Amino acid sequence: MRISQLSAESGVPIPTIKFYLREGLLPQGRQTSATRAEYDQSHLRRLRLIRALLEVGRLPVSSIRKIIEAVEDEETDIHEMLGTAHYALSPAPEPVPDDEDWRAAREIVDHLVTDLDWQHVRPDAPTRDELAQTLVTLKHLGMPVTRDDLLPYARAADTLVKEHDIGKIPIDGPRDTAVEALVICQVLYGKAFDALRRLAQESESARHFGIRPSDDCVAGPPE
Amino acid sequence: MRISQLSAESGVPIPTIKFYLREGLLPQGRQTSATRAEYDQSHLRRLRLIRALLEVGRLPVSSIRKIIEAVEDEETDIHEMLGTAHYALSPAPEPVPDDEDWRAAREIVDHLVTDLDWQHVRPDAPTRDELAQTLVTLKHLGMPVTRDDLLPYARAADTLVKEHDIGKIPIDGPRDTAVEALVICQVLYGKAFDALRRLAQESESARHFGIRPSDDCVAGPPE
Repeated sequence: MRISQLSAESGVPIPTIKFYLREGLLPQGRQTSATRAEYDQSHLRRLRLIRALLEVGRLPVSSIRKIIEAVEDEETDIHEMLGTAHYALSPAPEPVPDDEDWRAAREIVDHLVTDLDWQHVRPDAPTRDELAQTLVTLKHLGMPVTRDDLLPYARAADTLVKEHDIGKIPIDGPRDTAVEALVICQVLYGKAFDALRRLAQESESARHFGIRPSDDCVAGPPE
Repeated sequence: MRISQLSAESGVPIPTIKFYLREGLLPQGRQTSATRAEYDQSHLRRLRLIRALLEVGRLPVSSIRKIIEAVEDEETDIHEMLGTAHYALSPAPEPVPDDEDWRAAREIVDHLVTDLDWQHVRPDAPTRDELAQTLVTLKHLGMPVTRDDLLPYARAADTLVKEHDIGKIPIDGPRDTAVEALVICQVLYGKAFDALRRLAQESESARHFGIRPSDDCVAGPPE
């Protein structure tokens, strides 16, 4: 297809497509004359991936470039390729204070990773530090967290990922599509879960604190 | 205690305390002379609450004022008071498109709320729209979500809230402390869960995609 059709099918304006071509994010089309190039489904898939990285992942172009390099380099295996996107989507790691509270928190995290049999998580994964930092903040605010406090949350995360998240990433198709699915799943299912948790909190808070004997909606029909 | 001691115990600088007093976020102390006022534990608790709302909730002063009005108004029951903080911490609702996709998504959400027996969630709760909006985005990106897709996530949220989150909010103590605990729990346990989910994803992705026969860490000891 010509660039005009690529634009129509993808919904991406032609000047934006030309920008992606110049930046090397989108591979050049097959040149059919001095002024014409042909594009195909692989370009459409790439545009979908770029859109997911930009609009869902809200990543800067520099991060997108790194991810696309991993997608294009067939030497990079699928796990490493997905890992590049996975880390790019995580919050930037904060500097680690390395005091006693922090070491204790980091120890809880490392034990938890072992308890959950997550032994494939890299020892230097920034997510370990990120979680430890949240535990330190909770401690400083007077709500210290033990390994036992964290376990049910970790188990729930483990089950959701193993039984549901991971199946949403197609591994047999094109590499662009796998990364696109990872981005969408990681960000939007994360958002959905957060909203679900707040719905559950609203409901449970009403049940727990709000319903006085005069309110009859507990005893009443579920309607 | 005097304002200098209140500052020392809370870690909040005196000019900031004076700002909160002027803004009405912190109640005036008991005047003991023309230039002196006495503060007590209730002021310390209020400063802790303000800090949680500012630093953990990242709320603007206008939202903090509303929450504190609910805390101070003893006519506001504890559920409504917590609800004020709960909604303030949620993302600002986006305008609702009200097209067919949106109505279908909103129907999934409403059915889910019934399935989960969350009948205390207000019919006009902005969280319903927020979740519906995420479902619309997923559909537009080519990953449509059914009620069945969402159910395990909703069940996990339900269990975590009922068995763990809700117990973290002390109801018999001062009202400031209950709201402070809600803010900390909602925001920081949300952050912790997000990190746990990404740890599980990293581990499961390695197990699923990355481990080639040459890597022996699957067969190796759990160490």
